Order: sequence, then structure tokens, then C-alpha cells
Amino acid sequence: MDNIKLTLSFDGTRYSGWQRQINGCTVQEVLEDQLASIYKQAIRVVPCGRTDAGVHAKMFVVNFKMPPSSLPISNIPDALNSGLPEDICVYKAKKVSSDFHARFSVKQKVYRYTIRNAPYRSVFDRCYYHQDYTPLDIDFLNKAAVLFHGEHDFTSFCSESFRHTHCVRVVDRLYFQRKGYYIYMTIIGKGFLYNMVRIIVGTLLEVAKHKRKMTDINAIFKKKDRCYAGPTAPAKGLTLWKVVY
Amino acid sequence: MDNIKLTLSFDGTRYSGWQRQINGCTVQEVLEDQLASIYKQAIRVVPCGRTDAGVHAKMFVVNFKMPPSSLPISNIPDALNSGLPEDICVYKAKKVSSDFHARFSVKQKVYRYTIRNAPYRSVFDRCYYHQDYTPLDIDFLNKAAVLFHGEHDFTSFCSESFRHTHCVRVVDRLYFQRKGYYIYMTIIGKGFLYNMVRIIVGTLLEVAKHKRKMTDINAIFKKKDRCYAGPTAPAKGLTLWKVVY
Repeated sequence: MDNIKLTLSFDGTRYSGWQRQINGCTVQEVLEDQLASIYKQAIRVVPCGRTDAGVHAKMFVVNFKMPPSSLPISNIPDALNSGLPEDICVYKAKKVSSDFHARFSVKQKVYRYTIRNAPYRSVFDRCYYHQDYTPLDIDFLNKAAVLFHGEHDFTSFCSESFRHTHCVRVVDRLYFQRKGYYIYMTIIGKGFLYNMVRIIVGTLLEVAKHKRKMTDINAIFKKKDRCYAGPTAPAKGLTLWKVVY
Repeated sequence: MDNIKLTLSFDGTRYSGWQRQINGCTVQEVLEDQLASIYKQAIRVVPCGRTDAGVHAKMFVVNFKMPPSSLPISNIPDALNSGLPEDICVYKAKKVSSDFHARFSVKQKVYRYTIRNAPYRSVFDRCYYHQDYTPLDIDFLNKAAVLFHGEHDFTSFCSESFRHTHCVRVVDRLYFQRKGYYIYMTIIGKGFLYNMVRIIVGTLLEVAKHKRKMTDINAIFKKKDRCYAGPTAPAKGLTLWKVVY
């Protein structure tokens, strides 16, 4: 069976994350149901990773073994989209080598966290940013961001309920950019722990507001305890931006 | 009583337009209810105009006579926003001269219509654009747009159910711009008829797709009959962009 790579985007607002679960609607469930209706059999997709409830994906990648079908591969996106809801869109389908694995083959993931740093809300993109009214110093944020670069044990920056056995991860890049009222945090690495990006954002926002010192960050790493880091920033500001293979 | 000018924005997706009506939730109703809860009495606002169901406003202006109150004018936005839903935001309040009238004092209105001209949908801004898969020629659209410039009798470009007695209007500017997958039509004038902007868009899209000739536009003007123009483009692509006084 051909190995097919699908590239899609979704608005995570109304989903309980990517992964299929008993309670709550998930992106996996909706996508696999649509594939099943095309191929007349259950299809299981391999995702590039999991996203939390409310987190979005500008680019999300899955692969699946395609049963024999008269549908040309180039027509898969249209066939899927005609049945998918408005908040999920498959924009590419491609035959890949049989050893391509959407998760294990990932070289880099790029996540973007959007903060609206303005005296008032914006109504149009309200599901895609976290509002912070306190004026934030972007240079200061970028200085603190450097402390996350490289290899660290991110135990303190991982949700306790989903503790991984091995919490060492490498952050290739982490930086902030301001465009008008918006501040974008970009974080790049091969993989991240559960809630890791959002806890980093929550911690850096506390540093930016001088609720804690920049030097606290190294101390938090050493503690290896979630309690010492800042709060988990809201899911709606987070978007899986790009997956590199 | 002081005359207060409020500047707000709203996402029109779930509203039956601006104007209060018996069936359906309207922006006017929600805003006036919130003003009433602040001033402990019914407040009637004067709007810069009406918007159809589903049409958005990046900038919308109203004025109202403020009853005596201990609330400083600069605090009105925060006071209102704390009770307003996420899809309406008041971002400015200002005391203006007693003869300022949000509708009669308008010098110019700028509307923007957003067309996504791409082979696939976008999930994030799906409530704010009209998708058109046919590749559109922006230069051709701009040539046709010129035919709407200046003073015309727009009877053919006005919804029949809301026929005005006087359908002559002046279009100061009308032009298209492309940014990536998006095409923006900007139309500027003192005032527009009911559905006029959306019927112009619908007609120009037919011209762009060579379903009708560019020279048909002058013929449509002469007919003074709505039946001869193109379809009314979907409301969700339209945004009241700016109101100039």
C-alpha cells in the first residue's frame, strides 16, 4: 500500500486537541472519519505529534497507508475537504517512501505563540492570541529567551500530569518579534514536552513583568519541579507553525 | 448632556447586522444594553450607518448623549468592554461638539471586501473572506473598477427589498490589491446603498471570470434594475474599514 503524506491546517478552538479520545471532539477523529468515508474502511493516521486542546496548526502532517483506490493522489485534498468542517483543511497529499513516519521522521518543529500587547482587544483574531495589557519590552524578552537555548532538562517546564521519563530537550532557537500590537514568540526544536512551550511563555511573561528575575530561569531548570516555573499560557495563543522533515 | 463619540469594532458573524430588530441579535442591542447597565437608564446611540447581517466593522462610530455620571469619559471603553462579548470591542470614547452626528457628519466611508483567491481554503480567517478558486486577474479587475468611479445612479446595484427613493451615489475610489493569496477591494465614498458594495463585488467577479463583458457595466447602470447586475457577494467578506469625519 502506498504511504501518503497529508499536510493540513486546523483551527483548534473547538477541538479537544489532536488525539482521539472518548470524550470530546478531536481533529484525529474528524480526519480519520473522512478518510474512512473515502476509502470505505477504517484508516489510522500517524501524526507529526499531538497538540493540546485549543492549540492550532498552520501546518500539521500525518501519513497513512492508502488502500487500493481509483482516487488520484492529487485529488485527495479536494475529496477530504468537501466533507471536512470549515476549521480543518487538507492542502497537500503526496506519495512518500514507505519508511516515512510523520512523527519519527521530523527534523524540526516550529511553534509560534502570539501575544497581543495593546491597550484593547482585537475582535477578529480573538481565538488566536493571548491578550496582555502590560507594555512588554521585546529586547528584555529576547535576552531572557537566550537562557532557553540549547540542551536542558525541561522537567520544570512540563505538565506534571504528563510527565515524561526523559525530559531533556534541545531548543534550537527561541526569539520574540514585535509587529505593531502583536508579539510573536517563535520556538524551534526537534520536539517539545507536554505544555512545554506554553509554560515557557508563562514564565517569560512573568520575567518581562519583573514578577521574577531573569536569573531565576536557571534556578527553575535546576529544581526539576513544575511548581517553580510560571503559569501555563493559554492554549489559544499557540500555533504549530511548521514541521520540517 | 455631553455628546460622546464611541469608536468600536465588531465581528459581524453571529449578528443580524447593526440595527436593532425583533428577531435576531444585533450589535446595536448588545451595545445599548451595556450602556444602559452603566448609566442605569436606556441609552439610544446614533450609528454611522447600518451594516447587513454578517458584515464586519474594523471601525464603527456611534454617538450618544451621556447622562450625568461619575465615570470619566476615558474609562468608558473599559467599562463597556468588561461587559461586552468578545466579538465587540469599544476602543475609544471622546467628548465631541453637540452638533456631531455619527451619520450626518460622515465625510467618507471606506469598505474593504476580501477575496481569497487560492487553490485551498484558510481555516483561521474563514469568517472574513469570500473564497474564489478561479485565478483572478487583478489588472483586469482594476480596469473594470474604474467604470464605477464618480457619480452614478446605482439602482441596479441596490437590493430591491430596500429600494431608496434616490439612488445616485458617488464612488470616490474603487480599486483592487493583491497580497499573496488575498485580493482586497477597497471602495470609498460618502455613502452606499443597501447591498451596493456586495453587488458591485459580485458583478466584478463575473466580469473577471469573463461571464460578462466589461462593457456590460455601463449597460447595467442604464437599466436601473437589480436583475441585470451580478449576484450579491457573501456578507462575510465585507468589512467597514474606516469612517472619516
